[in-house]
Amino acid sequence: MNIMFLGTGAGIPAKARNVSSIALQLLEERNAVWLFDCGEATQHQILHTSIKPRKIEKIFITHMHGDHIYGLPGLISSRSFQGGETPLTIYGPKGIKEFVKISLSVSHTHLTYEIKFVEIENGLIFEDQSFQVIAEKLEHGIDSYGYRVIEKDLPGPLLVEKLKNHGIPPGPIYQKIKKGGDIQLPNGSAINGDDFIGPKQKGRVVTILGDTRYTEKSIKLAEESDLLIHEATFSKEDQQLAYDYFHSTTMDAATIASKSNVKKLILTHISSRYQTTEQHDLLLQEAKDTFPLTFIATDFMQIEIPKNS
Amino acid sequence: MNIMFLGTGAGIPAKARNVSSIALQLLEERNAVWLFDCGEATQHQILHTSIKPRKIEKIFITHMHGDHIYGLPGLISSRSFQGGETPLTIYGPKGIKEFVKISLSVSHTHLTYEIKFVEIENGLIFEDQSFQVIAEKLEHGIDSYGYRVIEKDLPGPLLVEKLKNHGIPPGPIYQKIKKGGDIQLPNGSAINGDDFIGPKQKGRVVTILGDTRYTEKSIKLAEESDLLIHEATFSKEDQQLAYDYFHSTTMDAATIASKSNVKKLILTHISSRYQTTEQHDLLLQEAKDTFPLTFIATDFMQIEIPKNS
Repeated sequence: MNIMFLGTGAGIPAKARNVSSIALQLLEERNAVWLFDCGEATQHQILHTSIKPRKIEKIFITHMHGDHIYGLPGLISSRSFQGGETPLTIYGPKGIKEFVKISLSVSHTHLTYEIKFVEIENGLIFEDQSFQVIAEKLEHGIDSYGYRVIEKDLPGPLLVEKLKNHGIPPGPIYQKIKKGGDIQLPNGSAINGDDFIGPKQKGRVVTILGDTRYTEKSIKLAEESDLLIHEATFSKEDQQLAYDYFHSTTMDAATIASKSNVKKLILTHISSRYQTTEQHDLLLQEAKDTFPLTFIATDFMQIEIPKNS
Repeated sequence: MNIMFLGTGAGIPAKARNVSSIALQLLEERNAVWLFDCGEATQHQILHTSIKPRKIEKIFITHMHGDHIYGLPGLISSRSFQGGETPLTIYGPKGIKEFVKISLSVSHTHLTYEIKFVEIENGLIFEDQSFQVIAEKLEHGIDSYGYRVIEKDLPGPLLVEKLKNHGIPPGPIYQKIKKGGDIQLPNGSAINGDDFIGPKQKGRVVTILGDTRYTEKSIKLAEESDLLIHEATFSKEDQQLAYDYFHSTTMDAATIASKSNVKKLILTHISSRYQTTEQHDLLLQEAKDTFPLTFIATDFMQIEIPKNS
């Protein structure tokens, strides 16, 4: 499980930062990539990575501003052009389906795969045996969502040494024991499988927020995450600008990280007004003063989310 | 008057060639830039040039395929973000207005300037005192147009030496003489202004075609152009593929150039199957065998269209 930033700028593309997109790579977990937002030229950014468009299984749109959605029609078309056959599910606020459908229809684009649309509201928007995703509306003038991606706890490992010590040699019976509960052994005796399974491995939690002002809702959504990705369009010096434009400052983001007790914070959606190394260092320091484990995203930055021990 | 190629690839973006867009720079002529097609990330390409989005006065869309239109919403938004105030006119086939309007509306984009839409048919689609543009439907499965851009002839220069030899010294009278016709001089005598004006300077003609199969319509539209820009998606070896997909080969384009008696041909919309220098050279040679003054466009290639003497 790792994150690759594909676009980390705000509003309009610049040479150094493209508009918003983040790839959550779940190759080991489900041989898939989930995209969060898809600003224009996201597919162009992907050309410079190892990401395969056909492996993109889900796209989560935080909100409908152009710098977060205008790359969708092109990416969707190219995924088809390159032979994508598996379905793609797009989650996003109301309007996302109309935008994609009309873009594809006016351009006479016929896909080789099916797109499913989920126009979201607050709450659980996806769940399968290994993941949950929860959406929560933030504060941005238009509907803008944060997504909490929850990896379900992994079953504990089978305690092979302990089994051997109990005189239970490896064999098909191990599969049964792994499921836990009462087990009848070939020799007639009974054990409880749970006694031979190690503790569960806690699943990871990544929270990725759309554009937003500072809001208590972010704290609740991000609570105890392994990683929080929060916008920081402005320096803390520009608090009033941030408020007026429904955005956050470095300090807003760091305060959310601190109050929600996350392990790590990455700032993204950085305004192009901050371009020099000095400005970058200053933004980072502003956040670190409140939440030391802060990083600032750059395009193509990749970060591993380590398994919990 | 010069042409800057912003995207010269076919179908989907590749590292070396972006999807279609061509800028006709008319800075000297009208302090404006006209864009022909606007594939995704055209605004990103523009970041690497001296083109100012606010100077883009007109965008001509040849056809509605995604690789020719998906960059419109982003470019239009950024033109506004960067303070564009003058109107923008978009010419294109039916559907272009719906695509742009819905993209801007779902993304809550409010522009600082007005967009005018002209959904085109064959014939004269624009004329003012210095330019005409004629559209002609080509052959591409869906409606795909070529555009013939005609610079009107420029008035001849005032023959200052001849005037002096006639004892007419420089002064406000020169402005009157420049307009031609009978002129009463301050000393009472009369002259015909036309006798003191050099020959008209012939305006230039540039023909830019959308995706198309070989068609006689291109010959008529491009006739005697100073420059013809024609797609060449395929090598002449892949004639059948070109036909099946409603595209042209290098030789198709060269034949059109030859039959329409243009001065120069530039091939664009090159399939990503031809990537090596050897393949590029081969494509070029195929065209040159039929029309020697052929060039193959590359992204950011710029070409001056010299004034007629």
